[in-house]
Amino acid sequence: MLFNAAASGLAQKPGQSVKPASEIRPDNNPNMETKKIGLAIHGGAGTIERSKMTPEKEREYRAGLERALTAGYEILKRGGSSLDATEAAVRVLEDDPHFNAGRGSVFTSAGTNEMDASIMDGKALKAGAVGSVQHIKNPINLARLVMDKSPHVMLDCAGAEAFAKANGIELVDQKYFFTQERWDALQKMKAAEKDRASGAGTSFLITDQDRHGTVGAVALDKDGNLAAATSTGGTTNKMPGRIGDTPVIGAGTYANNQTCAVSCTGDGEYFIRAVAAHEVSALMQYRGLKVQEAAQDALDTVKQLGGTGGLIAIDKNGEIALPFNTNGMYRGWVSRLPLAPPDTNWILNKKTFPDAPAFDTNAATQCCQHFRSSFRVLTKKPASARRCGSRSIILPPTRRKAN
Amino acid sequence: MLFNAAASGLAQKPGQSVKPASEIRPDNNPNMETKKIGLAIHGGAGTIERSKMTPEKEREYRAGLERALTAGYEILKRGGSSLDATEAAVRVLEDDPHFNAGRGSVFTSAGTNEMDASIMDGKALKAGAVGSVQHIKNPINLARLVMDKSPHVMLDCAGAEAFAKANGIELVDQKYFFTQERWDALQKMKAAEKDRASGAGTSFLITDQDRHGTVGAVALDKDGNLAAATSTGGTTNKMPGRIGDTPVIGAGTYANNQTCAVSCTGDGEYFIRAVAAHEVSALMQYRGLKVQEAAQDALDTVKQLGGTGGLIAIDKNGEIALPFNTNGMYRGWVSRLPLAPPDTNWILNKKTFPDAPAFDTNAATQCCQHFRSSFRVLTKKPASARRCGSRSIILPPTRRKAN
Repeated sequence: MLFNAAASGLAQKPGQSVKPASEIRPDNNPNMETKKIGLAIHGGAGTIERSKMTPEKEREYRAGLERALTAGYEILKRGGSSLDATEAAVRVLEDDPHFNAGRGSVFTSAGTNEMDASIMDGKALKAGAVGSVQHIKNPINLARLVMDKSPHVMLDCAGAEAFAKANGIELVDQKYFFTQERWDALQKMKAAEKDRASGAGTSFLITDQDRHGTVGAVALDKDGNLAAATSTGGTTNKMPGRIGDTPVIGAGTYANNQTCAVSCTGDGEYFIRAVAAHEVSALMQYRGLKVQEAAQDALDTVKQLGGTGGLIAIDKNGEIALPFNTNGMYRGWVSRLPLAPPDTNWILNKKTFPDAPAFDTNAATQCCQHFRSSFRVLTKKPASARRCGSRSIILPPTRRKAN
Repeated sequence: MLFNAAASGLAQKPGQSVKPASEIRPDNNPNMETKKIGLAIHGGAGTIERSKMTPEKEREYRAGLERALTAGYEILKRGGSSLDATEAAVRVLEDDPHFNAGRGSVFTSAGTNEMDASIMDGKALKAGAVGSVQHIKNPINLARLVMDKSPHVMLDCAGAEAFAKANGIELVDQKYFFTQERWDALQKMKAAEKDRASGAGTSFLITDQDRHGTVGAVALDKDGNLAAATSTGGTTNKMPGRIGDTPVIGAGTYANNQTCAVSCTGDGEYFIRAVAAHEVSALMQYRGLKVQEAAQDALDTVKQLGGTGGLIAIDKNGEIALPFNTNGMYRGWVSRLPLAPPDTNWILNKKTFPDAPAFDTNAATQCCQHFRSSFRVLTKKPASARRCGSRSIILPPTRRKAN
């Protein structure tokens, strides 16, 4: 069976779903059974400032997302579980200093790094989570271990680290999590806070990227099992001990074979209050909404409460939704389509794609801002479209092989 | 307006709802508007072993529940908020060494006490929670403070305690939380664990009371606002750092004016995996179930996963549900009914109440076991019924006055 993989920074309008892989069969064998498998990842809602994005950085972000997709998809392709795939994808992003999780975690107001992570198995509704860990190289592996090897779902602080140590999980010094950019973001936020308190009125541009970020993955495997995994350093300048939505099952992470798998990113407090991830599932289960409608509805609830962010969701048919209400969300997905479907190149331009909604100047501007700042335009679209365009990453031909 | 208050140890079949106060108006003024207010509390699913229940202890448990109900209801009666009422009721139970929260918290496997608590405001969907705190006399007050005074929803460990200290919340030495009974329960569980590991095969009776417990309150105030609050010492012999469902918004606590307020108790891990509290709300909102149906459904999901426990829920009309699947659940409620409605004296006996389901020997036995062990039978029911009966506590006549 042919397959290819597509990843995109802003491949479509927020909220637009990717067509399920299963709906398109390879032309050379239209009756061949196509097992529905799929993977989506995010590297956090709230992207880097456009002025700070260099071509080199752009390549690095892109490469990080690609590595994560590849790690996860290789597992699915070999018949592995969605749990393993999401854990592997998130681990790659944790090891990448560009994303706010593991290595690239943001700093608390005390200048420390405190991380949260969780994972959920949609088949057995099992889950594992860790909160406020400070010396765990890969919190997602510890969350998995909590699920697999402890009688509990959630462990935090020293207790979680003692469990890690007893089970051979790698502990590292806090220095491992130092990155200059995250440190600078903390100083900027502290300066802004100080100025606000003194009424100095100095202007600080605090971006979503400065404030938050998270990494996550959702997947569907060949056995129809869904899984979700999320990991984060939390929010810059957070109070020590702050736990966000990431390790809260139902808020930042949820998976249920009957409905979908969800991983959220953004202002965690609002996602907790909206019980966002479980809300997506409940809307599908009890109101019969499609995954993209449910995902958008849940995100709208978060927004109504005042929160910004995004989420990724995959349903039992492999349909993927990736809505967000920030200026951008690093994200990507892989499907088993023989070719990237047209809507992975979906563009905010009614003329180019008649099924697109009325052209929204604000949305288009946001789209362009994000797009230009984070990814080069590589599509072969007409110049007029290219401005707001997006592109799917096609994995090298060597990866195209019969499965 | 006349009112009275009713509290009960096992006043009805698990899952049976209490009729809303608003449906019955005082006879002396049938057209008078009756503001719907209501309060329900629980002192944990999993009650003390019958053989260990003395009349004195029974009085103490009963008195604790009454004090909590009175504290909460006095606030509602004076026109106070459901938030204040639930916080006050839970605080009383935290101060009572009989219940597993605050003062009477169980011990971790390390012999320490680690407490979780949360509170949620159904009007604004605001919430506050604390996890793994070790020196907070009243964790529920700290959860409220997190909601009111911090930019976060959830704080844990040392960070939560630093925030408490900075805001004048009372910190106490761990000795404050020592109770002989909880310590003995830990020793019993450790001995059982050791014997299991060595294959000695000694028989230990580990009861629900030994394993877990939680306190919680849900309320509806005169403005139609719902609130829920929950507090716990967790599970006996839990790993240090274990966070249960109590501080997880959506799992152990949830409130939403559109639907209901919920507080759970039991095997926290299963309530997290079922996102139990939010599930009750979702079933009401998206499937149109009544509060008692939704509460029972959500608890059934917990049971399907393997969990035992119970929950209390109140909806926007003041309907109360108190289902549980353990041998008992300490609980009580207050309504504005001029007289306690018949079903607060509901008995597992088909003859006595024709609307009761077919007599279930197992259920009746469980009921009796619980009832006899925890509360004396005070009703004026026929002797045959009294065996399994239950009783509502009527507050003294001095409290019956116009509101």
